[in-house]
Amino acid sequence: MARLTSHYVALAGGVGGAKLAHGLAQILPPQALTILVNTGDDFEHFGLTICPDLDTVCYTLAGLANPETGWGRREESWRALENVRRLGGPDWFRLGDQDLGTHLERTRRLREGQPLSAITRDFCRAWGIAHRVLPMSDDPVRTIVTTEEYGDLPFQEYFVRYAWQPRVRGFRFQGAATARPIPEAVKALAEADAIILCPSNPWVSIDPILAVYAPYLPKAKPVIAVSPIIGGQAVKGPAAKMFTELGIEASARSVAEHYRPYLTDFVLDQADAALQESIASMGIRVHLAQTLMHTEADRRRLAEDVLNFIHQR
Amino acid sequence: MARLTSHYVALAGGVGGAKLAHGLAQILPPQALTILVNTGDDFEHFGLTICPDLDTVCYTLAGLANPETGWGRREESWRALENVRRLGGPDWFRLGDQDLGTHLERTRRLREGQPLSAITRDFCRAWGIAHRVLPMSDDPVRTIVTTEEYGDLPFQEYFVRYAWQPRVRGFRFQGAATARPIPEAVKALAEADAIILCPSNPWVSIDPILAVYAPYLPKAKPVIAVSPIIGGQAVKGPAAKMFTELGIEASARSVAEHYRPYLTDFVLDQADAALQESIASMGIRVHLAQTLMHTEADRRRLAEDVLNFIHQR
Repeated sequence: MARLTSHYVALAGGVGGAKLAHGLAQILPPQALTILVNTGDDFEHFGLTICPDLDTVCYTLAGLANPETGWGRREESWRALENVRRLGGPDWFRLGDQDLGTHLERTRRLREGQPLSAITRDFCRAWGIAHRVLPMSDDPVRTIVTTEEYGDLPFQEYFVRYAWQPRVRGFRFQGAATARPIPEAVKALAEADAIILCPSNPWVSIDPILAVYAPYLPKAKPVIAVSPIIGGQAVKGPAAKMFTELGIEASARSVAEHYRPYLTDFVLDQADAALQESIASMGIRVHLAQTLMHTEADRRRLAEDVLNFIHQR
Repeated sequence: MARLTSHYVALAGGVGGAKLAHGLAQILPPQALTILVNTGDDFEHFGLTICPDLDTVCYTLAGLANPETGWGRREESWRALENVRRLGGPDWFRLGDQDLGTHLERTRRLREGQPLSAITRDFCRAWGIAHRVLPMSDDPVRTIVTTEEYGDLPFQEYFVRYAWQPRVRGFRFQGAATARPIPEAVKALAEADAIILCPSNPWVSIDPILAVYAPYLPKAKPVIAVSPIIGGQAVKGPAAKMFTELGIEASARSVAEHYRPYLTDFVLDQADAALQESIASMGIRVHLAQTLMHTEADRRRLAEDVLNFIHQR
């Protein structure tokens, strides 16, 4: 199958997912890639609707992302937030001045009744993003993390306010049962030559998307996941901690097991080569790669590898 | 009556009102002054509640105001708005980054159900404002300007978006009939030794306050207004244009006539000395002063004059 006539759908959460999506966008023409982004960690703050994963993916693709953090804008300033703090307001969610422009305009258009997918399309055009980025739904889905210490927490409270320190007992995706998938995404999945699960958090970045799209995944096409866990550690964020707290060994093997109902292929970091056989025994094709993405070249290289793995059949 | 045991209530709109209020605050101790501020030009924009007059008064009293414009913050930046513009959003209302902090935190607290007066009190404390600043009501009042060209316009659309160019046919203060006055303001008015109508726009800055407080103005106390019109011209903004478009001569005399049901005293700029007799013939005590406030010293001097006029009885 010639790669240039192929189409791929990448499911992505925030930073890790955005990096691989960026790698794919560097090598695939716009019509060959659809990036379907988690909106379960969206929330309302100060009256604004904030979509952290969507923004991270878009900022990354547009070259606007902060290269140090992976989230937020490069050359950001914090004057609005400093003034909120002076007034005694909550400053736990880092709202940068440039980033606020995105939240303001998105909120304005949502309040006019425009769908998030249409707003995202226009924002991508304004930011010069050629590839298609779709929020997983125009209907709100809200990830709730059940914790030992605080009970149910909206995702951003768990993740940012409490710095993912509470012990996790479970998750639910409020609204997912009734959230309508985006028709363009359903069509892209039906026509896709392969589905790529980016190295995002399985529990809170990819699962919310699967909660809406599981019925629309193509049955006989490769579904390939890149492990966000290397050597038992999450590259970033709470993925490994979540596995442990749920009584599951934190390992790339557990990630493959987690995705098992959907998976045909799994990309394991070379550091985890020892797990290869054990994952293969689940009936999953296992590929070794260098999965850490420090540089933009790393992103591109991993994307190349993933596409090659898909076509090595 | 000794000035230091007196109490004054100043009614104020935006820039001009804020300057005289600042002058009064420079010479009166905190317990001697209540500043009652128009909220008729408040509006919702990008999901945020914006209170332009309240912010102008507070920023001015706190020394945070932009000395060039009179509104907004000094040393302001515009990165959020630049990003809104890049996304094709409306940029006609100048939202500065620091100023956004105020709107964000106010909106957050309003959405929690906190009254605007309590929020304003806390903001004043955070900004080091010792004098009492009260919004005219905790209930929303919205000034609607009826224009020849566009029919009814919410105040900020008329004022900022259309740069007060449409021809005015009339005004109404949506919600004023049912808006509850602030109990502290009613008490301050009842106990006041004099009421000061600051040199703000009579039609759209002071009238909305009077629409709520007319029944609470003390009957036998001085009510003194400072003309916002000098030599037939508004010092700033559309006041003179409004008089003309409503078929009334734009003059300080028309301002006195406008306030006549309430007024005992009127402060006329020295440039308008010729109008003195004509205004006095309405049964109003007329005082001459230098009413332009270019510097902080001008504000203080005019405030001194106003207090002296009140006590010259």
